[in-house]
Amino acid sequence: MLGAGYMGSAITFPLFDSGHSVNLWGTWLDDDIIDSCRKGPHPKLGTPLRDGVKTYLSNDLADAVADAQCVFVAVSSEGFIPVFRKFLETRRDVCPVLCLTKGFVEDRGRVKRISKWAEEVWSSRFDGERFEWISIGGPVKASELSRMIPSASIYGVSSDSLRELAGAVSTPYYRVFPYGDVAGVELSSAFKNAYAIGLGICDGIYKRRNEEDYHNICGIIFNAAIGEMAEIVERAGGDKGAVYSLAGVGDLYVTGRSGRNRRFGELIGAGSTPKDSYEKMMGEGELAEGYDAVAKGVHWYEEQQKGRLDDLPLLKTLYRIVIRGKSPEEEIYSFIEGCGC
Amino acid sequence: MLGAGYMGSAITFPLFDSGHSVNLWGTWLDDDIIDSCRKGPHPKLGTPLRDGVKTYLSNDLADAVADAQCVFVAVSSEGFIPVFRKFLETRRDVCPVLCLTKGFVEDRGRVKRISKWAEEVWSSRFDGERFEWISIGGPVKASELSRMIPSASIYGVSSDSLRELAGAVSTPYYRVFPYGDVAGVELSSAFKNAYAIGLGICDGIYKRRNEEDYHNICGIIFNAAIGEMAEIVERAGGDKGAVYSLAGVGDLYVTGRSGRNRRFGELIGAGSTPKDSYEKMMGEGELAEGYDAVAKGVHWYEEQQKGRLDDLPLLKTLYRIVIRGKSPEEEIYSFIEGCGC
Repeated sequence: MLGAGYMGSAITFPLFDSGHSVNLWGTWLDDDIIDSCRKGPHPKLGTPLRDGVKTYLSNDLADAVADAQCVFVAVSSEGFIPVFRKFLETRRDVCPVLCLTKGFVEDRGRVKRISKWAEEVWSSRFDGERFEWISIGGPVKASELSRMIPSASIYGVSSDSLRELAGAVSTPYYRVFPYGDVAGVELSSAFKNAYAIGLGICDGIYKRRNEEDYHNICGIIFNAAIGEMAEIVERAGGDKGAVYSLAGVGDLYVTGRSGRNRRFGELIGAGSTPKDSYEKMMGEGELAEGYDAVAKGVHWYEEQQKGRLDDLPLLKTLYRIVIRGKSPEEEIYSFIEGCGC
Repeated sequence: MLGAGYMGSAITFPLFDSGHSVNLWGTWLDDDIIDSCRKGPHPKLGTPLRDGVKTYLSNDLADAVADAQCVFVAVSSEGFIPVFRKFLETRRDVCPVLCLTKGFVEDRGRVKRISKWAEEVWSSRFDGERFEWISIGGPVKASELSRMIPSASIYGVSSDSLRELAGAVSTPYYRVFPYGDVAGVELSSAFKNAYAIGLGICDGIYKRRNEEDYHNICGIIFNAAIGEMAEIVERAGGDKGAVYSLAGVGDLYVTGRSGRNRRFGELIGAGSTPKDSYEKMMGEGELAEGYDAVAKGVHWYEEQQKGRLDDLPLLKTLYRIVIRGKSPEEEIYSFIEGCGC
């Protein structure tokens, strides 16, 4: 497991409980976490790791991955490129990659889907060898998973032979469902972070006004988000059924109710600028990945997919609010007046 | 508008604001409401009706509907049969019917979709005349609509000629989208009340345990609900696209966050029996329509659709909890361990 933050560490619980040996490697930002885990509870999850899980400091990557039968990557989207490059330099032979990182990467000015970028660098390292990839999606909050609260995840597999691997990490409290489409799961997982900001913004607006909840607006936003995600996935050649699965509706439901991106939106809706909101959260150790999902997602959609942002009016609205700093209230209201739903 | 409760009264705001004459008739249960509205604010909405809206007591149905160009029905599902029969007895000629009532009706031991039952009695009253019907769905909480908080609704029309009518009641704060399938909108609206109970139950369980939220479970339930609703709609010959629209995902998002059925589920999840929960809410003037949606929905699915409840494991779980009184915790956990998601 590459990455010892919330999610990487939480996934080690079902991995271990389903009978596997687990090596947890922390990046150069995680050395303190690894140190703490060796003495007591995981500092973010508040609970100790399973006894048999081996922990590795950032300098010990080679040892951590040498004999691994597969590798999970659970770093932030910013961290994906350096970590994956380091992994490829270190690793001798191929193995399946299971990706918990959500979003896009930017390499020399070009924004790409993580799986596409990974496949390219993989091919230059392991020329001619098969690229086996799983994009992991679904509504799984790490703090709940590590307490064994029942959770379910969808594993978008690049080939049918990986379905068995997905099944092998399933436990009664962590149900894993393989799904035969990487793009659908990957894009749903990335864009739901963007759209969850929109749900948060609406709640922030009513809080600022000191009125009751604006449920009706949230219903419109949720519905439009699902519709736009289906369009994005189809355009990318994926299966839009993924949007109507755990990766889409299931995850957006949870992310919209709670979570960092929702909170980021709430701060903006309540009147804080996107920059201040982002920095306030960073100061508390909370990364609002949805900011990047809006910026890079729009970039990717326009550049790589040759799409017109006018076809995705809600994403355009979020872009104007979050990246361009326009008024949340005016933008949301004008979206609703103009939307086709 | 037949029915002066929350929803019927709230819809009079956009109807009036979009330039129509509106007659609001209260059933025999609503006479006190009509009396109050004539003197001051609507007792449930807390705000006065628009000045031009005419109010009618239960005895004055004939006057209320005589010249109407179309009729909205917004009574509870229990009230639908007597009110619609009375309307047909009173009314001289045909007009389009727009139905806000959600759920099923039971007539001589047979459970039917409201639109199907209405069409039958309509045909025996207006033999040979065209039955024009709109099923109204979407995430619209009445208290927000009457405060002009932006809301959107989907009107499932029985023929394309009704699209214009749907458009004619749209306002900037009440966006109306016509949709060419009655069954999809009607069934999504009915079953989302049943499935919202499931979301409430999960929140009730964690409250009883005094733990943090169980978001991951709710994500699983939300996702399974959408999947089963799509199956129900398809089996009934409807368009499952309605499930992925305002009538399905949009409305379930709002109903799961807030609302009477969610609260009913929460009481059950926290340990109260379904009967006690239902009666507690009735004592506060709150009808948990989802109870009926589970009971009648299952009956309808098995009898009218010849469906096997085993194909809808979440609905079966809710039936066992809400109707058969089984343990919420055991049933939900066993659903999750066995679900195919």
